[in-house]
Amino acid sequence: MTNNPQEPGRKGLLIVLSGPAGVGKGTVCSHLRRISPDLVYSVSATTRAPRQGEQEGINYFFKSREQFQAMIDNDELLEWAQYVGNFYGTPRSFVEDMIASGRDVILEIEVQGALQVKNKYPQGVFVFLMPPSLDELKMRITGRGTETEDVIEKRMNVAIEELRMMRHYHYVVTNDEVESACERIRSIIAAEHCKRERLEPYLNKWLEGVTG
Amino acid sequence: MTNNPQEPGRKGLLIVLSGPAGVGKGTVCSHLRRISPDLVYSVSATTRAPRQGEQEGINYFFKSREQFQAMIDNDELLEWAQYVGNFYGTPRSFVEDMIASGRDVILEIEVQGALQVKNKYPQGVFVFLMPPSLDELKMRITGRGTETEDVIEKRMNVAIEELRMMRHYHYVVTNDEVESACERIRSIIAAEHCKRERLEPYLNKWLEGVTG
Repeated sequence: MTNNPQEPGRKGLLIVLSGPAGVGKGTVCSHLRRISPDLVYSVSATTRAPRQGEQEGINYFFKSREQFQAMIDNDELLEWAQYVGNFYGTPRSFVEDMIASGRDVILEIEVQGALQVKNKYPQGVFVFLMPPSLDELKMRITGRGTETEDVIEKRMNVAIEELRMMRHYHYVVTNDEVESACERIRSIIAAEHCKRERLEPYLNKWLEGVTG
Repeated sequence: MTNNPQEPGRKGLLIVLSGPAGVGKGTVCSHLRRISPDLVYSVSATTRAPRQGEQEGINYFFKSREQFQAMIDNDELLEWAQYVGNFYGTPRSFVEDMIASGRDVILEIEVQGALQVKNKYPQGVFVFLMPPSLDELKMRITGRGTETEDVIEKRMNVAIEELRMMRHYHYVVTNDEVESACERIRSIIAAEHCKRERLEPYLNKWLEGVTG
């Protein structure tokens, strides 16, 4: 065992990155992937058919509906949801295996899913991505296409409901600029690895060695 | 008010950097000072006479014994101690003024003093600097001069007692290399500014604006 709990040998972390639709979770994650190649991205299970080029275990774990139902029944998913007739979920084993091997895992997910994960895996690090302003969020939501006023208003109401959920998160990061948001997330990950509570098992062993 | 609680306008933090004698608190602080010029270093009050070149309010706040006693009586010190016949302490007002103006304040202090500060200012961020190994700590303690075995053993026992105090801290940072230790401390400061609990007052105002 290394003497330094901040070096390899330590356990990894699950970082859950969430926030309202339109806040830019995907953009932040892509940038994070480029600047932090060591981060592992959680791979979802799905019942939808693979699209061209999609690889098992890389893009998704492809499951039959029966297999997926069994995963739900056996509590093998940290969260799951149904979307346009297909099931999507986060396999617990993938996350736990990576963490046990010392890798940090990032899970990008919408707000409802994140709250499910928090119930099943409260030791995760829950980061809420916030728009710099409501106008900015509205611009991002309307900027997506040629939606009607009605649809936009509905989406805004959903986004506001989602914003209220930030009280369940450990950290709030403003997505003013992708680079600064990613730097803050990297700092959060580094700081969480220094948390005394997380290091307790290593530290106790170290202290035993010192005083034993 | 800015929409972004991670930008100027926010409140500062008190970061208390502590650890056993010989762990390298001073070296880490000097390096941190160079790479983070925005950090304010807490200025102590003392009853000892100014030495040549020492400036009031920069190196110390110089006080008479009566003035110092009055500060103790009026609870104007976050901690204090007597050392070789003189009193030393951390004026609460200096720290609080800087924090109110949005500056982060760092306080380098030995373990007993840090625990006093934690009682008076629990919202501080308490960072324990740890030696990479006990041998390393012993080398640092003995490397200081030409002490007898007896003195070294006493110092080691004190250091071990101080190591046990790390359970009162929020973060533990291994001082394996000064640069990495400082990077971890910088990450801790950045992450603490993203803590949802700390941002709560700003976020609630923001949400009121959104939904009002």
